[in-house]
Amino acid sequence: MASTAKIAKTDDKNGHSNADDQADKEHQEAIEQIDEVQNEIDRLNEQASEEILRVEQKYNKLRQPHFGKRSDLIAKIPNFWVTAFVNHPQVSALLNEEDEEALQFLQKVEVQEFEDIKSGYTINFTFDKINPYFDNEVISKEFHLNDTGEPSSKSTPINWKSGKDLTQKTATPSKGKKRTHDEQESFFCWFTDHGDAGADELGEVIKDDIWPNPLQYYLASEIDEEVGDGEDD
Amino acid sequence: MASTAKIAKTDDKNGHSNADDQADKEHQEAIEQIDEVQNEIDRLNEQASEEILRVEQKYNKLRQPHFGKRSDLIAKIPNFWVTAFVNHPQVSALLNEEDEEALQFLQKVEVQEFEDIKSGYTINFTFDKINPYFDNEVISKEFHLNDTGEPSSKSTPINWKSGKDLTQKTATPSKGKKRTHDEQESFFCWFTDHGDAGADELGEVIKDDIWPNPLQYYLASEIDEEVGDGEDD
Ligand SMILES: [Ca+2]
Ligand SMILES: [Ca+2]
Ligand SMILES: [Mg+2]
Ligand SMILES: [Mg+2]
Repeated sequence: MASTAKIAKTDDKNGHSNADDQADKEHQEAIEQIDEVQNEIDRLNEQASEEILRVEQKYNKLRQPHFGKRSDLIAKIPNFWVTAFVNHPQVSALLNEEDEEALQFLQKVEVQEFEDIKSGYTINFTFDKINPYFDNEVISKEFHLNDTGEPSSKSTPINWKSGKDLTQKTATPSKGKKRTHDEQESFFCWFTDHGDAGADELGEVIKDDIWPNPLQYYLASEIDEEVGDGEDD
Repeated sequence: MASTAKIAKTDDKNGHSNADDQADKEHQEAIEQIDEVQNEIDRLNEQASEEILRVEQKYNKLRQPHFGKRSDLIAKIPNFWVTAFVNHPQVSALLNEEDEEALQFLQKVEVQEFEDIKSGYTINFTFDKINPYFDNEVISKEFHLNDTGEPSSKSTPINWKSGKDLTQKTATPSKGKKRTHDEQESFFCWFTDHGDAGADELGEVIKDDIWPNPLQYYLASEIDEEVGDGEDD
């Protein structure tokens, strides 16, 4: 099939036949035309992406008042966020005992996607002012993709109260206190870890899994506890 | 902070204070209200998904005539598809020497997403009628998700000509012919492999990587050959 154009070929001095030349020319023209069609397809793909982005932006705006109302309701429930985190298998694995103590002062979590969505998001953690660990009321971690798609992240520096820096504790465990599996790196080390901003596991779990529906994780404990209570009877 | 409601508690006979009861009631009410807000958010999420699906369907329709035009142009170029496949690293790894012979008769590849997109897609392979391997002109593999999201796939049975079944060849290598690494399972075994329909690697590579722009893979050989030609000088 590929050789039909070569059947009646007449070689020129370079070993090319006129039929070969004609076929080569036709193939080259076809390739150029495919390239043009491909450009049209690419243009449609870009239009589709832009239109989908506008739909996502529209619904992000429509969801905002509901998220605000949800935050107000969540604030009425003591230990909502620490409970949701402890009940989330992936997040729970990142918490040591002192992290859980400190996160009892976490009153509000907020995920904000940037206006153009694809360029990044911020997670704001609002803590009780009376918290004994640090002076900050809001600690944020921000994930950003620049124009060339290069990821980066930055965080609010945490102003730890004297002797309370949880990110230092595991490095120097207190004398006489036996080292347990709970003495793992603190959850709060995440704020200063900018090594994998393009695929930050905890950031993505909070944004894509917890933030869309934190209630299910808060309630997971209720179910677990009820099952546990039943077994204790 | 969680205990403020318990400060002035008066225990009843069950060990619960009135303040406890009041706080429990308020928390329960808040949880119910969060659940209602969450339902509103879920409803918006569904609306967003439907709207995005409609955008995708609209652009799928707009792309169709360009794909048709592209197929007509590709048909003018001998060995376009086998070249694109051989130049694609993942697909190339699935081809033995006889597969490459047989795929020289592949004239058209077509990916059709189902109208509701999320429910599946079909890949149609159109072969030259004079092909010496099988009687089929069109061989298709179809991937389908049912209502409960369960994946399945099915294919056109291939009517192999006598002694030409490539899916049988590797099982019984001809006598005296030494076994090489090329005697791997045939590409055509993919048509009867329905074991991983939900994550069919080759299906997804063709749909998501090759189909959007097959020209780049066809041309990749041109670049490689030119580099190769240069090195031979
Ligand atoms: Ca409970
Ligand atoms: Ca070349
Ligand atoms: Mg909140
Ligand atoms: Mg085609």
